[in-house]
Amino acid sequence: MENKVTPRTLQGFVELLPADQLAFEDMKGKIENVYKRFGFVPLDTPTLEYSEVLLAKAGGETEKQIYRFTHHDTDVSLRFDLTVPLARYVAQHFPDLSFPFKRYQISKSFRGERPQKGRFREFYQCDIDVIGSDTLDLCYDAEMTAAINTVFTEFNIGDFVIRINNRKILTGFFGSLGLGDITADVMRTIDKMPKIGAEKTQEELTKLGVGAEALARINEFTSVKGTNAEKIAALRSLCTDGTFNIGVDELESVIKTAYALGVPEKNLEIDLSIVRGLDYYTGTVYETFIVGHENFGSVCSGGRYDDLAGFYTDKKLPGVGASIGLSRLFAQLRENGIIEAAKRTTAEVLILPTGSDRFAFTAKIADCLRNAGIATDVYWSDRSLKAKFKYADRAGVRFVAVIGESEEAEGKMSLRRMDGGEQVSVTAEEAIEIIRK
Amino acid sequence: MENKVTPRTLQGFVELLPADQLAFEDMKGKIENVYKRFGFVPLDTPTLEYSEVLLAKAGGETEKQIYRFTHHDTDVSLRFDLTVPLARYVAQHFPDLSFPFKRYQISKSFRGERPQKGRFREFYQCDIDVIGSDTLDLCYDAEMTAAINTVFTEFNIGDFVIRINNRKILTGFFGSLGLGDITADVMRTIDKMPKIGAEKTQEELTKLGVGAEALARINEFTSVKGTNAEKIAALRSLCTDGTFNIGVDELESVIKTAYALGVPEKNLEIDLSIVRGLDYYTGTVYETFIVGHENFGSVCSGGRYDDLAGFYTDKKLPGVGASIGLSRLFAQLRENGIIEAAKRTTAEVLILPTGSDRFAFTAKIADCLRNAGIATDVYWSDRSLKAKFKYADRAGVRFVAVIGESEEAEGKMSLRRMDGGEQVSVTAEEAIEIIRK
Repeated sequence: MENKVTPRTLQGFVELLPADQLAFEDMKGKIENVYKRFGFVPLDTPTLEYSEVLLAKAGGETEKQIYRFTHHDTDVSLRFDLTVPLARYVAQHFPDLSFPFKRYQISKSFRGERPQKGRFREFYQCDIDVIGSDTLDLCYDAEMTAAINTVFTEFNIGDFVIRINNRKILTGFFGSLGLGDITADVMRTIDKMPKIGAEKTQEELTKLGVGAEALARINEFTSVKGTNAEKIAALRSLCTDGTFNIGVDELESVIKTAYALGVPEKNLEIDLSIVRGLDYYTGTVYETFIVGHENFGSVCSGGRYDDLAGFYTDKKLPGVGASIGLSRLFAQLRENGIIEAAKRTTAEVLILPTGSDRFAFTAKIADCLRNAGIATDVYWSDRSLKAKFKYADRAGVRFVAVIGESEEAEGKMSLRRMDGGEQVSVTAEEAIEIIRK
Repeated sequence: MENKVTPRTLQGFVELLPADQLAFEDMKGKIENVYKRFGFVPLDTPTLEYSEVLLAKAGGETEKQIYRFTHHDTDVSLRFDLTVPLARYVAQHFPDLSFPFKRYQISKSFRGERPQKGRFREFYQCDIDVIGSDTLDLCYDAEMTAAINTVFTEFNIGDFVIRINNRKILTGFFGSLGLGDITADVMRTIDKMPKIGAEKTQEELTKLGVGAEALARINEFTSVKGTNAEKIAALRSLCTDGTFNIGVDELESVIKTAYALGVPEKNLEIDLSIVRGLDYYTGTVYETFIVGHENFGSVCSGGRYDDLAGFYTDKKLPGVGASIGLSRLFAQLRENGIIEAAKRTTAEVLILPTGSDRFAFTAKIADCLRNAGIATDVYWSDRSLKAKFKYADRAGVRFVAVIGESEEAEGKMSLRRMDGGEQVSVTAEEAIEIIRK
């Protein structure tokens, strides 16, 4: 016996068995359909790019995680997200694009982080962004929340809430406190508040050197409660800073347009503790949580930025985007039994010919069903009927059609619903009608 | 001004502008739909694997082209095809799979070959394979040709022909000539015949040392002409070798089942010069050509193999597969004007609100259309009507809906067909009906 290589995959690189893969594709397909329905065009950038280009902006932790290597004297890297390639694409192809440019990309990205539960080294991101040339209307921010709302509604995985804020409110408010150098640290502490609680936040803020008066105002700010309308009203009386007030106006406008776009009030909630990354976002920011599973973390995040591609071009390219980390979300949903993976086949009907001379008639039936758009599998192998039904059972197929000698003589099949329906003797045309129902 | 990084992509790595990307996605979607309709399940293996695993079988030219590097002391490579990962997957997950295992994979592969026209370093492959455990019925070979036939019919890019052969015919026939060591060289020469012509082939065979009698029999073999049935009949009287005759039986059976599965006779032609790679295939082999564009080369190839995963497992895993090199095919079709790329948007209708206070009503209309499954884009930006119509024109959208003051007052929109139809004043419900038609 020759030596065998052990078949195995790299740590942190996931591949799924058929049932899970089908459930994954179902979610991916829903996302893609919604993105298209909102008028986003597909984009498919290269997996590999010049390191110089991909890392123009990166640094710190991100840069350490990059899959970077030299191929024929060229320094190349695997993409680590879909935003940098988008920035490069828009800067490179600017004259050939229409603006606002609405694109979606559903692709794998790569980060060599320490593998841990729910963290992958290769993972799907499902991004939408709208990029304006010079300016971009605020309605696009609202459209993002509507797209997210539609995706998570169609997932049908229970209640969810999009928590929305505006960075101008934060920079305006915290800037007005006169905190100087510690402003950024204070905002980072506020960002952690949902995790660490109000008391610990208070402690940390005091430790940072926040004075009593500022602390009182921060308390007032983080205590804003009520409906979205009540929060907006409370904010209006809280601060006179110009940037702050622009932020409140933007937030109010985005929320109103989102409602008009069909986002239910219960799915969109102002949350002043949402900060997101400190450098990038400049206006609207949002995170999405599954109610009862807040421990998953945000399952869809994004926001508004002023300068998409400053590392590549002098053109002003403001944008707004959202990203679903599908690999991670899928793993969380499966682990918690929130979605099922019941089917192992794309087929709706499985044809089981009996005997070995049914092939011509069976082939005609299969062709008929497929021409009618019905996904059809045929078990061609000459095995026992028991083996055939075992294959049908494991596949989780909805219908099985048995074709034996008597069926062929009548030009029919014996069609059986696998979820316990009766067996009927039908022609291909009749079968098509039953299966379509 | 700070220094900018020039936005650019690696040589041989393609990315498309929106119109081309949409045309590409359209083809990719058609392939995927057909694969599903034939009951294949999706598979999505990692882009990156252990080099030891991916290169278990590779060698020579392939190995030189691999993107291989070391990441944190691990020797890894980007996949260079989808067959090796399939072999690894089936060997690794054998106990969890049902056989015959029918999978499709539509993914990018990577080869660092010298970039040239129509050759890419990153390219899409669209593969289907059926893997049996121990045995695999010949009907699956026929089903491959039926799936290929459906894909190329739905592409609607003109006539095509699947040229089919059986390796047992070749090994049986050439083995029976008593050519000894030069048998493989003789077969390689025959493989080149369609390119180099009959005369040059004769010359090369003589140079190899093929004697007069063998030459006469080779001539007889390569001169077999006529319909598929006539070719089968001619072959039957040509050689008494056992393997040869099994090959003829298999070929005849595959063709008959293919016809029954709906493959028209004109799309499936026995071609005894089809050889494919010498080591891998053991039975049915096929290549697909677009009539009038034979210079594209084969646009979909594959065949039957006895031993998918011998480098990983002792299990006998025979299979049959087909692969479409979509990146290359798409480039060829576009360059030759065989397919168009007219649309720049996924949207069927573009809403153009006029004035700046139409947002709430516009949003409601957009939500209505999207809920009806109609892909809808809204031009939210506050620009001139001219700028708005320019955007609509470039997008290639079918319908434009203008919403101005009077439309809002009536609760309607002015819907216009962009291909020159009249403009009508309609409600959202009426618009849905018109657009669906």
